Amino acid sequence: MIPFNKPFLTGNETVYIEDAVKAGKISGNGKYTVKCQNFFEQQYGFKKCLLTTSCTDALEMAAILLDIREGDEVIMPSYTFVSTSNAFALRGAKIVFADSRKDHPNIDEDLIEALITPKTKAIVPVHYAGVACNMDVIMDIAKRHNLFVVEDAAQAIDSYYVDANGSKKPLGSIGHLSAFSFHETKNIISGEGGMLAINDMQFAARAEIIWEKGTNRSAFFRGEVDKYGWVDIGSSFLPSEIIAAFLWAQLENIEKIQSKRSRHWKHYLEGLSEWADTNNIQIPKVHSYATNNGHMFYLVCNSLKQRTEIIEKLKSSDIHPVFHYISLHSSPYYSSKHDGRNLPETDRYTDCLLRLPLYYELNPADVISALVKL
Amino acid sequence: MIPFNKPFLTGNETVYIEDAVKAGKISGNGKYTVKCQNFFEQQYGFKKCLLTTSCTDALEMAAILLDIREGDEVIMPSYTFVSTSNAFALRGAKIVFADSRKDHPNIDEDLIEALITPKTKAIVPVHYAGVACNMDVIMDIAKRHNLFVVEDAAQAIDSYYVDANGSKKPLGSIGHLSAFSFHETKNIISGEGGMLAINDMQFAARAEIIWEKGTNRSAFFRGEVDKYGWVDIGSSFLPSEIIAAFLWAQLENIEKIQSKRSRHWKHYLEGLSEWADTNNIQIPKVHSYATNNGHMFYLVCNSLKQRTEIIEKLKSSDIHPVFHYISLHSSPYYSSKHDGRNLPETDRYTDCLLRLPLYYELNPADVISALVKL
Repeated sequence: MIPFNKPFLTGNETVYIEDAVKAGKISGNGKYTVKCQNFFEQQYGFKKCLLTTSCTDALEMAAILLDIREGDEVIMPSYTFVSTSNAFALRGAKIVFADSRKDHPNIDEDLIEALITPKTKAIVPVHYAGVACNMDVIMDIAKRHNLFVVEDAAQAIDSYYVDANGSKKPLGSIGHLSAFSFHETKNIISGEGGMLAINDMQFAARAEIIWEKGTNRSAFFRGEVDKYGWVDIGSSFLPSEIIAAFLWAQLENIEKIQSKRSRHWKHYLEGLSEWADTNNIQIPKVHSYATNNGHMFYLVCNSLKQRTEIIEKLKSSDIHPVFHYISLHSSPYYSSKHDGRNLPETDRYTDCLLRLPLYYELNPADVISALVKL
Repeated sequence: MIPFNKPFLTGNETVYIEDAVKAGKISGNGKYTVKCQNFFEQQYGFKKCLLTTSCTDALEMAAILLDIREGDEVIMPSYTFVSTSNAFALRGAKIVFADSRKDHPNIDEDLIEALITPKTKAIVPVHYAGVACNMDVIMDIAKRHNLFVVEDAAQAIDSYYVDANGSKKPLGSIGHLSAFSFHETKNIISGEGGMLAINDMQFAARAEIIWEKGTNRSAFFRGEVDKYGWVDIGSSFLPSEIIAAFLWAQLENIEKIQSKRSRHWKHYLEGLSEWADTNNIQIPKVHSYATNNGHMFYLVCNSLKQRTEIIEKLKSSDIHPVFHYISLHSSPYYSSKHDGRNLPETDRYTDCLLRLPLYYELNPADVISALVKL
């Protein structure tokens, strides 16, 4: 049986969890939380990082930090996970969905500017499959219209945007705020888990407060105030040290994990290019301004029928691919709130995109041979 | 050194975490989540339980389920943790604070009715130190005014309300909804963690949706719908299986843990009653309608000065008690929103209450002898 995903354990996860317990500290914001946050700040140049219980929670922190209110508008792709939109809907925002690119599920940057109104507050590009959106274009639009950019980098750990001069910027370091996921299906995992990366430091002090249930507890422990109390809205966004300890064991092995996943990805690419071409199936596009982080290998079939047939045939070989997302603009919750524009590329990816198994211990040859003989 | 708290490990926490990883499932709502939820439903008769990443998140789910909106009013004690109020403030509610009882930090049930207005939507009693509020009175008020009751049972695991006929109801089973905490300072822990208990089943189906990021994923996996999508607001309220596996190891030992903590509590009571009396210090009151779950032993000193002296003297013996809470009605965030009523008992507990160390591996005699010789 080849499942869609299999969480990979580096070996030190439970060692570090036991260490956290022995140190007498398993609530949030302890030693391992700091180690993980420092790693991201140093490795990728994010100005300030805060671990969260999920990427969803990191996006909710972003919505609170941007002071999103009833009536504000936020532009994002419709082809994304519900959390991208839910986080802003929870604060009362109207979600304005943009269609995806023809050659990639990422938001079509050329469609964004026409959607901006005086109520628009933010743009939320999602780096689908860990492949960069066209960030120079998006940041330029945001700058000209005085908007904030929140990168949904859920799938985009250790991936880069390459600008016109060829210089590489880590995804998550470009927008004002960014959200990462460590869900078990991601490259680096903690079961459920996420992180807010803050690049615009005007948000740093308030982020720490919102993270700590609306209290100035962090400032208190640094000795900056003499008692701590309720100073703002907030939630318990910080994860247990059990989660952070687990995550640390993963981060220590990020090079090994990334190298293995990238090899699998290339193996898929080499093994499936000709077959995909023959069958009129699109394989992942990595634009010249993007890199690939080995997060996901997907097929875009030429029809729902073709996708259904491929799924059935793979399942008969006990191989379990998955599809997603149901377009948010036509979801039961949002279809009546959506402005009625058709988003044909989004709908196409909803019907035709198929994710192949991709995990550390996979042998891609098993999936390739099952596909090619179809 | 005697710290205020020391997390207790039963021994199987990391065994179950490794089991969860081996089963290929460490995201939320897996085997251990179900085991924990079933345990609470069977042991305490809560109709439906959902694990959350914190008690804060369980309270936020309650606020969403009650459809709390801008302008709604929610009555609660001011002497409580910020999350009790934050969860409702996040949805736009006005918080109406009631004073505590003279003989106990719990909300004074006789003050509630006068605070009800046509905008009041809910009452949130907090069972401080795991000791029951006067629930028959509170439920009667709620019924007569058509209000919802959310029990903040953060500290109240395995504790009971005893009605006039002497029959015992588990705390958390009485209000329409209840929130529990498994923070490292609680009796049963998972570092950070919590649970929503649903007693009014009108909320059950929507709770599951809100818990799963606003999707009907749970219904999908039960085969009730043929695809799942965005159907409501929601968040990622469910914890990792890593957390649930840890929690399960604790729950398997709940009797042992509760019995040890209760012994410590009685040890404190016997060792300190005379000394407290001599020094005009209040020790924990357990009303005839309540039980004690060994969560907390506290002193209510006769002045801030006396409390400060006791803290200093204990610290000189390397014993570390803690105090809390800064009254929410006079907090930086809420003082300008509060209606100006004085809450003298709340302020007294803020100034005078001191929590003594209480954890599984404690020897209370060490703390008692240090106190008595003061």
